[in-house]
Amino acid sequence: MADTMKAAVLHGIHDMRVEDVALPQPSAERDVLVRVHSVGVCGSDVHFFERGRIGNTKLEQPTVMGHEAAGEVVEVTGEACGLRAGDRVAIEPGYTCRRCEACRSGSYNLCREVIFLGTPPVDGAFSEYVTWPADFLFKLPDSGSYDEGAMIEPLAVGLWAAWRATVRSGDQVAVFGAGPIGLTTLQAAIAEGATRVIVSDTVPQRLELAGKLGATDLLNAAEDDVEQAIREMTGGRGVDVAFECAGAVPALQSALRVARNGGRVQIVGMPGERSPQLPLYEIISREVDLRGLFRYANCYGPAISLVEAGRVDVRSLVTHHFDLSDTPEVMTFVHERRDGVIKAIINP
Amino acid sequence: MADTMKAAVLHGIHDMRVEDVALPQPSAERDVLVRVHSVGVCGSDVHFFERGRIGNTKLEQPTVMGHEAAGEVVEVTGEACGLRAGDRVAIEPGYTCRRCEACRSGSYNLCREVIFLGTPPVDGAFSEYVTWPADFLFKLPDSGSYDEGAMIEPLAVGLWAAWRATVRSGDQVAVFGAGPIGLTTLQAAIAEGATRVIVSDTVPQRLELAGKLGATDLLNAAEDDVEQAIREMTGGRGVDVAFECAGAVPALQSALRVARNGGRVQIVGMPGERSPQLPLYEIISREVDLRGLFRYANCYGPAISLVEAGRVDVRSLVTHHFDLSDTPEVMTFVHERRDGVIKAIINP
Amino acid sequence: MADTMKAAVLHGIHDMRVEDVALPQPSAERDVLVRVHSVGVCGSDVHFFERGRIGNTKLEQPTVMGHEAAGEVVEVTGEACGLRAGDRVAIEPGYTCRRCEACRSGSYNLCREVIFLGTPPVDGAFSEYVTWPADFLFKLPDSGSYDEGAMIEPLAVGLWAAWRATVRSGDQVAVFGAGPIGLTTLQAAIAEGATRVIVSDTVPQRLELAGKLGATDLLNAAEDDVEQAIREMTGGRGVDVAFECAGAVPALQSALRVARNGGRVQIVGMPGERSPQLPLYEIISREVDLRGLFRYANCYGPAISLVEAGRVDVRSLVTHHFDLSDTPEVMTFVHERRDGVIKAIINP
Amino acid sequence: MADTMKAAVLHGIHDMRVEDVALPQPSAERDVLVRVHSVGVCGSDVHFFERGRIGNTKLEQPTVMGHEAAGEVVEVTGEACGLRAGDRVAIEPGYTCRRCEACRSGSYNLCREVIFLGTPPVDGAFSEYVTWPADFLFKLPDSGSYDEGAMIEPLAVGLWAAWRATVRSGDQVAVFGAGPIGLTTLQAAIAEGATRVIVSDTVPQRLELAGKLGATDLLNAAEDDVEQAIREMTGGRGVDVAFECAGAVPALQSALRVARNGGRVQIVGMPGERSPQLPLYEIISREVDLRGLFRYANCYGPAISLVEAGRVDVRSLVTHHFDLSDTPEVMTFVHERRDGVIKAIINP
Repeated sequence: MADTMKAAVLHGIHDMRVEDVALPQPSAERDVLVRVHSVGVCGSDVHFFERGRIGNTKLEQPTVMGHEAAGEVVEVTGEACGLRAGDRVAIEPGYTCRRCEACRSGSYNLCREVIFLGTPPVDGAFSEYVTWPADFLFKLPDSGSYDEGAMIEPLAVGLWAAWRATVRSGDQVAVFGAGPIGLTTLQAAIAEGATRVIVSDTVPQRLELAGKLGATDLLNAAEDDVEQAIREMTGGRGVDVAFECAGAVPALQSALRVARNGGRVQIVGMPGERSPQLPLYEIISREVDLRGLFRYANCYGPAISLVEAGRVDVRSLVTHHFDLSDTPEVMTFVHERRDGVIKAIINP
Repeated sequence: MADTMKAAVLHGIHDMRVEDVALPQPSAERDVLVRVHSVGVCGSDVHFFERGRIGNTKLEQPTVMGHEAAGEVVEVTGEACGLRAGDRVAIEPGYTCRRCEACRSGSYNLCREVIFLGTPPVDGAFSEYVTWPADFLFKLPDSGSYDEGAMIEPLAVGLWAAWRATVRSGDQVAVFGAGPIGLTTLQAAIAEGATRVIVSDTVPQRLELAGKLGATDLLNAAEDDVEQAIREMTGGRGVDVAFECAGAVPALQSALRVARNGGRVQIVGMPGERSPQLPLYEIISREVDLRGLFRYANCYGPAISLVEAGRVDVRSLVTHHFDLSDTPEVMTFVHERRDGVIKAIINP
Repeated sequence: MADTMKAAVLHGIHDMRVEDVALPQPSAERDVLVRVHSVGVCGSDVHFFERGRIGNTKLEQPTVMGHEAAGEVVEVTGEACGLRAGDRVAIEPGYTCRRCEACRSGSYNLCREVIFLGTPPVDGAFSEYVTWPADFLFKLPDSGSYDEGAMIEPLAVGLWAAWRATVRSGDQVAVFGAGPIGLTTLQAAIAEGATRVIVSDTVPQRLELAGKLGATDLLNAAEDDVEQAIREMTGGRGVDVAFECAGAVPALQSALRVARNGGRVQIVGMPGERSPQLPLYEIISREVDLRGLFRYANCYGPAISLVEAGRVDVRSLVTHHFDLSDTPEVMTFVHERRDGVIKAIINP
Repeated sequence: MADTMKAAVLHGIHDMRVEDVALPQPSAERDVLVRVHSVGVCGSDVHFFERGRIGNTKLEQPTVMGHEAAGEVVEVTGEACGLRAGDRVAIEPGYTCRRCEACRSGSYNLCREVIFLGTPPVDGAFSEYVTWPADFLFKLPDSGSYDEGAMIEPLAVGLWAAWRATVRSGDQVAVFGAGPIGLTTLQAAIAEGATRVIVSDTVPQRLELAGKLGATDLLNAAEDDVEQAIREMTGGRGVDVAFECAGAVPALQSALRVARNGGRVQIVGMPGERSPQLPLYEIISREVDLRGLFRYANCYGPAISLVEAGRVDVRSLVTHHFDLSDTPEVMTFVHERRDGVIKAIINP
């Protein structure tokens, strides 16, 4: 193999270059070399491209973005947990210390020592190859494509949301926002038994896709009084769970108002305001739980099973494909939501 | 209305007579009069017909059997929780005291003061009419037939089993026994997210039906080494949950052996032995939980929703229909499992 | 018995009169007549006295306040759940419909049909007698005084808070506010296993009492940087649970910041602002759950057991006693927190 | 330091020799060298001494026993998680792979790759020194003795039992067996909020100690009808949790009968029979959960906190101390329960 590979390196705001970088070498920790076949473009990739930072995490040195990835095992070192060259795998993008209180208790998504693929300064998967620890690689079934493998990441977010919110059979839920995460969340909620799934968004095409993926009721937030509509649909009771997937404070406020007494509001999106006003009395006097979500834990295996069993359709979310060389342009393409893009996949 | 109605009264072992009995009158407690349209024949009805008792409950006076019922509201008295004449309802067959520790804490299925339809000496629904408390009647959706309404009862058992066993997305489960309860349990497990569902039975037609209802793997217990097969299918790991729906001690023993470390064995059936030998070390050294199940609580609403949403198919379980006048013969028909009967429904 | 009794009737803001009112008669629903011996003065009683309303609940007709009560059974009608004249009981002040979804599932505190003692227009226990349903009366052990019986109500709030927040052995918790509710919450947290209990308040005497009741660390919020102190005490980790018992938005904001990753913030108090700014990113990026609390469910029995077992000391919270005739003055006394009052008890 | 140390090596049944063995050297995995100060003698140590095996684990080469240990850090290599020479630590005796499904989900006690101190063929702590991974060492507080550090192991078992059985405030529990594990289990149950703790044993001194440690009711199983007594004590209701700590099938059968409807039976001991007869109908018709227990997970930190806070007294369980050279004789001493021994500690 060559010593170098192509990668899309983010040098600064609006400055991403596809260039030759050193081929990564397996190490004791990252014991598997993977040839990347599909890698999705996430809102956070675009956010770094546009702003150079997310919260306290800044781009301070050139970094390869990309963390929704799947590929083929090229080389394994060490024990490698049963993986072999040729295996097709999804990459769980955050590997953790395995030793701290969070890791030991099963909440490894809260490990403070996490190494997260494609988050500065850790190089990501907008590249031909990555190395990664074997226990954070998950074999794809024969029926699973690399694109589906890349989509396991956003599905894991939706599944974690459904688990955190303890959805169960017969639940009525509302999903605010029908972007990639809203669309995986609604499907995860259905997979966990939700029988009524009300979805709101402002983009008709997104609502239409939500309907195809199982949403039972569609609300156009640009036209409908969403809160009023949900109240009527549920006979005044409200929903068991309201998922905020729009990244919008007003949606979060509505979510708190339409959750039933004793219900849950699960935040999945990232509202732009750090300290918004929230209707506290909904939480207090109706015992509504407001729950955050930070990535996911132990979701990759189940998420792959859901796709394999045909219970979740991630394929329909993939609207566009691009070459690695296109990556810089794709950032803008996704940022501006051109051509009705839901999820764009790079195929290095 | 007339003062009398037809009912199938069990007078003693093998002595059931269809005769005229007094029409029940709504009372303060049983404030709704329901015209029964569909009532399923359960193994426990047959057991009373054959043995005159189940456990410590004996037939000591002539009693109308039948507890899997749905019908039309004819008359309401009192507040009646929003029901009106003409409403089509499923009858939750055990109403409880609403005041004891069990009722107050949500486990009303464990209330010691329960009045259970069609369990001696409480008359049941093999009759034209019953009275029942409004809060134990559940409206059927327009799309739901009375037969489906009657089938909510066995589905509630399966759903309670899936809840008690905390099935979730991606779980692998095994179901021992593909009778009516096994078939609702497997569907409830799928509704809660199970992606692999291994079903074993000795009757090929039952296995075939299990396959149509979503089972991913079928084992003929008369031919296959079920434990060995499950171990292989799961790569030696075992299943997250094993449901015992066969009412057989060997199945329960197998269930304990094929549950994964930290898994659950959920008893749903009623093995004939009261004090069987059980492989205790499976429970201890692998932290397997063995959980019982007694009827269900808070399942009727969700079960109706699952059927309405098309997530569970109870219609395929109904293999035979009979008139009320046939009821005595149906007891034997079901007891002898004639004509591949899964579920027989009486339509008074 | 006479036909009338003395009661402290609230006619309007700052207008409470002790006068003769009709003696209540047991009914089918309220089947027990209780002679009130002890009734605590709660902040909500004072709030109605000062403002004539709480949230949407207004004083629209003269009403007897008082809901933290214990007394002696004088007369029982109906079945009365084993109670007899002479029994000493604590009164659980909200009885519910027992039929709705909330009641049936064990969350009866969320029943919309609740009848709550001493909340307009329902007359309360600042009176010589009340009638109440037997299943909302709890026998006191021989060792328990009526004052302790009255204190079961605020203890139930604290216990519900500890349960909702899932405190367990070894947990580190912070309690913001050392009023009556903060002091029962801290003890409930200890009873559930918390080993480090950090309490903050601005009143030194309240902190001192907190220390006597088991708090391990005391912070004077008027002097200390509470957030910084908690961070240092926990080695930067934060607390498993932060309880907001001060009814103050800044305390709630601090609670969200000092909860550990994956921790819980349990609201117990009633901050005055309906839509305050909250640090949302603490909830999102650290998976902190924000949980409300509305009264309690299934807490009276366990709370009485905790007092009987000597695990919780409610006696030390009772700082003042008054006669029924003093009730109007006591409202102001408590409102102005005179004489270091924690809990004032009326003994009719 | 010398190249060798003293250790008590088990060569075969009844053949344990105190001899010079090589001093262990820290490795990448076992990065800390600990000077053992206190190590408890567990029933399993004695069982290997008497039988040469436990279940499928056989003594096939000379092995040092002992896994309830505490000591002083002598040398650290690698990162060592903040430990330094001179730190006093309790040793969590099973370290795990940190990579498998069980480890990742927080149930690391079920890891199949566990290395367990003092379980053949892994050498244990009946020796002067051991090496161990830093993340399975837990600092003792200044107030904690080495003996208490050694006792964290049996306390962790009791705490895990209380957690698995979900004890909470006001619960009534029964503990069958008042040996070391029964005595830690009863204290853990109290720490989690149990207010009534009924303990049964056949040895009066053990019952007396149980009473001193917080048991509210004592039953001498040699004289009393334990089931009948528990039924009466609980007014016919039964206990929320029954813990089997006696390692006896009849105790387990009783436990199943005295658990309340919907209660839990937690197995903590190791009954000698592998396939005993169990009263299955108690499990089925009353929804009693039967739960196993295998070691513990995430208990060391909380257990140390409970001791530090004075909530649990492990000191009273330590009845005898011995030198390392006495170890072979101590095996027999404990096996024959001489001199009322509860827990014997070796101080190398």
